Parts: sequence; C-alpha cells; structure tokens
Amino acid sequence: MAVDYQSLAVKGVQALSPYQPGKPIDELARELGLDPAEIIKLASNENPLGPSEKALAAAKKALESICLYPDGNGFDLKQALAKRFGVGMDQLTLGNGSNDVLEVIARCFADANSEIIYSQYAFAVYPLATLAIGAKGVEVPAKDWGHDLDAMAEAVTDRTKLIFVANPNNPTGTVHTADAIEAFLDRIPERVLVVLDEAYCEYLTGDEYPDGIKLLERYPNLITCRTFSKAWGLAGLRVGYAVSSPAIADILNRVRQPFNVDSPALAAATAVLEDEDYLRRSREVNAAGLKQLCDGFDNMGLSYIPSAGNFVAVEVGPQAQSVYHSLLEHGVIVRPIAGYGMPEHLRVSVGLAKENEHFLDVLAEALSSGGEEG
Amino acid sequence: MAVDYQSLAVKGVQALSPYQPGKPIDELARELGLDPAEIIKLASNENPLGPSEKALAAAKKALESICLYPDGNGFDLKQALAKRFGVGMDQLTLGNGSNDVLEVIARCFADANSEIIYSQYAFAVYPLATLAIGAKGVEVPAKDWGHDLDAMAEAVTDRTKLIFVANPNNPTGTVHTADAIEAFLDRIPERVLVVLDEAYCEYLTGDEYPDGIKLLERYPNLITCRTFSKAWGLAGLRVGYAVSSPAIADILNRVRQPFNVDSPALAAATAVLEDEDYLRRSREVNAAGLKQLCDGFDNMGLSYIPSAGNFVAVEVGPQAQSVYHSLLEHGVIVRPIAGYGMPEHLRVSVGLAKENEHFLDVLAEALSSGGEEG
Repeated sequence: MAVDYQSLAVKGVQALSPYQPGKPIDELARELGLDPAEIIKLASNENPLGPSEKALAAAKKALESICLYPDGNGFDLKQALAKRFGVGMDQLTLGNGSNDVLEVIARCFADANSEIIYSQYAFAVYPLATLAIGAKGVEVPAKDWGHDLDAMAEAVTDRTKLIFVANPNNPTGTVHTADAIEAFLDRIPERVLVVLDEAYCEYLTGDEYPDGIKLLERYPNLITCRTFSKAWGLAGLRVGYAVSSPAIADILNRVRQPFNVDSPALAAATAVLEDEDYLRRSREVNAAGLKQLCDGFDNMGLSYIPSAGNFVAVEVGPQAQSVYHSLLEHGVIVRPIAGYGMPEHLRVSVGLAKENEHFLDVLAEALSSGGEEG
Repeated sequence: MAVDYQSLAVKGVQALSPYQPGKPIDELARELGLDPAEIIKLASNENPLGPSEKALAAAKKALESICLYPDGNGFDLKQALAKRFGVGMDQLTLGNGSNDVLEVIARCFADANSEIIYSQYAFAVYPLATLAIGAKGVEVPAKDWGHDLDAMAEAVTDRTKLIFVANPNNPTGTVHTADAIEAFLDRIPERVLVVLDEAYCEYLTGDEYPDGIKLLERYPNLITCRTFSKAWGLAGLRVGYAVSSPAIADILNRVRQPFNVDSPALAAATAVLEDEDYLRRSREVNAAGLKQLCDGFDNMGLSYIPSAGNFVAVEVGPQAQSVYHSLLEHGVIVRPIAGYGMPEHLRVSVGLAKENEHFLDVLAEALSSGGEEG
C-alpha cells in the first residue's frame, strides 16, 4: 500500500499553512496579461524609493566573486552594525531577513514542550515558527488592534520560553511607547526571552518610543530584531539581524545556517548603513505618503488603524476580498489580511505620491461599484 | 542570581558546535597583513572559473529591483529546472543553498523521537541538522572512506525517519554506482525517507553513476538535493533545491522560509541553466585540475582518496594541522578535516592550473620542512 508521505511529517508541520506573501508583480502580469511596468504593488511594505545607489554599487561589486562562498561570519556588516549601535560584534546574529532570525530564535530556545506568547493580529511568522517546532502558541487577544501587554505578561506560565512583541506591529501599525515596553519587560521573569521585533522602527519619530538595542543593558532576556527590508530598501536581498547578549548570540549563531546571508546582500547592507541620506528620504517619503493615504481614507469616510509603519490597514467592510480583486484588475496589488483575522481590512503599503493617488482613485471606484467586479 | 541563558537553549543546540567554513580570503588577509589578491583559496570546493557571464548579467539586472521582495515561489527558476529535468514545478523546493534544503527536510520529517542515519566522514550538515532538532544521529562506520550502504540499510529501526546519502560524498570524494544506490534503495522501507545529496553530481562522467532525479519515479521515498554552488559557480548567491514527489515538496515548501532565495540568486540560477558552455568548462577544468593534483601527490609519495568531486582529501600525516598553518602563511588556504575524524588529511579543492601548481609547490616545501612553521 502506498505510503502517505504527508502523514510522516511532524505534527506541527502537518497543521501548517505556508506564509502567504503579497502577490508578485510578475505573477499578476502573467495572470491578467498586463504590462509589469503598469502594475503598482502596495502589498509587501516595500520601500517605494528604489534602492540606495551606494547599496547598489556595493552589491554589483560583490557579484564579481559569487563563485566564492559568502563570509559566513559577516565580518564587515557586523563591524558596521556594531559601530552604528555601540554594541559588540559578538552581540550580533545575521539572518536571511529578520524572518530567519525569528525562526532561529524559536528553534534555539523552544521545543514541543514550550509555550510561546504573541498577540492577536501580530506578524504571521510568530505562529508559523511556533507551529513548525511543535510548540504551543499562546495568542493573547489584542487591545485596540495592538498588543495588550498586560495580558501578555499575565499569560506567562512555567512553560513559557519566548514572547514575541512587534513594535510597531505588522499588519496593524500599532506601536507602544518606551514606558509601556519597559513596564512590560519589568514584569517578565528573566528566564523568559522577549523578542522585540523592530522591523519598522526606523519609521518612528519621537523620543517616546523605545530603542530595543539600548534596552539590552537593562534586560538581559531581551533580543531585538531588525531588518534591512523596510526603511533601508533591501527586501530583495534578505538581510536581518538580532542584537542580544553575547551568550544568546552565541547560541543563535550555532543554529543559523553558516551562509544564510549571501555576498551581494552582505555588501549592500554594509554600504547602505553609510547612506544616511537614503534613510532620511525613506522616512520623508513615508511620512508624506502615509498622510496622503489617511487623508484619502478620511475623504472617503473610511476607517483605518493609525499606523507607525510604512503601511496602513484600512477598513473597507465585508466586501474586502472583492475590493482586493477589483484593485488587482486595475493593476494595483494590496494585501488582504483575512488570514490575520481581519477580513474587513486591506493593508496598503505607502508608495510614491503618484502611486498612492492612483490607488486611492481605483479604490474609490471599486467601492462605488460595490466591489462587485472580483 | 543571573540567568545562564545558554542553559535555556534546547538540549541539542546546547551540544552543538557551529559548522566551520573554510577560512575566507579577507579574513586571512586581515590576520596576516597579506594582499587578498595574492591569496589562493582551495578550501571550500568553489568553482575556480569565476562566474558565468550569463549568470552575472542576470544578477546585475535583478539588483535594480532589490527594494521588492523576491518571488517567494521562485516561478522562473522552478520553470527552468522543471524543463531541464522533466519534472513538475510542484516537485521542486528551493533553498538557500542545499544546506537550507537539507535542514528543512530534517525539520519537516524528524523530531526528538526520531533517528537519522548518515555515514561516518559524511557532510557535516547531516549531524548538525540532526542535533539541532534533538533527533538521534546514527553514524554508520565508513567502508574505504565511503558509505557502507549495506550497514546503513541494516541500521534502520522503527524510529528511523531519514537517511542522508551523499553521492559523491564531501569531504572524501567517494561515490557509489547506480547499481549500488538502487540495491540500497530496494532495501529501505518506503516509510523511511532517503535524502540523496548530489551536490557534486555534475562532475560525474560515465553511465555507471545514478541520476537521483530519474530514480524518483521508482522510489517515492527519495528526495534528491542539488546545488548551484559547485559546478554552476554560484556559491556566493546560495541556491540549492530538492526534487521529490509533489506530496513531499508540499510539506517542504510549508516550512521553508518564504523568501529563502533572494532576487539576484533566483535570476542568476535561472540564467546559468542556459549556459551549457560554462558547465562544460567547469567539468573540463575540474578533470584536468584533479589529475594535476593527484599526479603531484603521486610524485610526492602522498596517499589520497580517489575523488569524484571537485576536491581531494590528501593524507599528510599527523602534522596535518601544522602543514595547514604553514600553507596559510604562504597565502594558500586549504581545509583541515580533523572535525570529520580525519586528522591526518587535508581537503584541497581543485583550482586553476597555476593555483594547483602553486599549492603543490608550497605543500612540498611545508612537508620538507616538517610542517613545523605553524
């Protein structure tokens, strides 16, 4: 009798549905016979500026030696990060995007006997990483779409190994102040690791927000994760990193794949850290675009969740899925977030001014036609 | 009292020593104050030809869109692989090098209750992937430095979930014929998955060797893994893949990170598959270089393990570590393999003719001086 190979997979994996990325431009172009150049993708919280010239030049140069393995220790990038943040190189763990780092943390410190806490509406990778190792995910109901930090602290049990906190959170854009995060950390036992996912932190302005790297000195159980995929504009190259105590970094570096970040990615990330002008423009374009989108929603009478990231979740109602398809037919890709338990919202990434404008026009049209086209 | 964070790691991880890559050229240059351009690296089984021009051009073009996430489904690369090998796109799983694919397979199909079989002297990633998930590694003693396939078949128990078979094997270069592999597969219960790691298969010539992809039709429990890091010359970009039944590929694709292969890597791998001339030259340079190295060893009276890969393990005796250091001081990086239980061998990758010649000269010098310099 034929073997059912899916039944041989470990239990958590059998129950797993893979992460659903935003629809790629080429895929939509193939499906609808559209010109890729005419498609606007506001679906994956990517940087609309195009890449930093400095990053691009460094990546190009690195291509010359792609016959050789990447530097498995990421010396240059770690040196640049250590200098920028005033930490030791031995506090850093590089990853294939912060997704990789988040997964490695889960695999290092949790197993089938563990509980991992995260919030309702939090980044999808937390439950996926939890399920893949067979751990028990403890999803704490959100408060006003954001993390209910008090309830999360109260959810800690003897089995809790990790808590994921996204600040700002994706897909809701909610954010906590430094006071709130510190009050939370004060309540967590030192034996429980807190992963502060700051993928969108570069978009924060204002002294009221925490800097997870600075908090490391006071909270040895903290791991702060960041990425080059958002404000630094390198999503296509896959570079993220964790900053932690050296003891924790030593563990993470044992499990991370030795060549998890490739040569052009290492070079581009190292170079972009020198491009402060790019970061400044990323922030400016984002602030202006976010305002443009929210003003547009206000004009249409649509509710949205105020966002601290480079995206905003807008409430379009029960017909969200058909509005999504209607937008697709007009060459605009946004992100349905029913999978996050938000079936009446769409998540829209901040684009360039003309992209935002076109999206708002098409959205108005889709809504006025009842979103029936899809 | 301060928490010992290393003690919080899962048990397998606590026991884990990370993979030791070949020393990077820049690292040696920093340590010894050498000019990187004068250093010869024969330490990581890399392709000495330099990259394919077609791959390079495609990667360069892909850099233009690095603000966007890679295509998580790897459509173009999967399409090209499916066409080349006559398999369905749904049989493919892409990985960040075959290292990634090997780890994903272990995480999908084994856990702390499982046994995983591999050979003594086999690729280091097999025991690492086993340990990281807390599974029991069953290392079967080698026969003439190669896999003892009969003993491996006999090692199967009710708990065995996976068997890793490297053909050719790294670091020994040993290889089995198609007859031997098929006789082995005939002995393995269908519920046990066999991972045939063919990272070096492109260097094989002769009809007597197996093609793991062609074997899939007869053995549904087989997963064949390959890489673009060796004969295809893209080690720095990290692309590997598994070919399996669609049912197994579906499981693997649930657990693989959605963006585990980045945009330039996807583009370069897709393009290099069209560059048959590059593959032909890779094979020619390798065959000539391997002969050159082995002739050199013969002339020096050194034993070596006949190799089917792009490297050869040469026996330099108890002073292997000091010979290694002596070579380093002369700007030649090879690979000590004491970590593989082969303390008297050094593994040397095949370089260009002049690199091989220089290595042989420096080796002769190091051996005549008793390898005492290190």
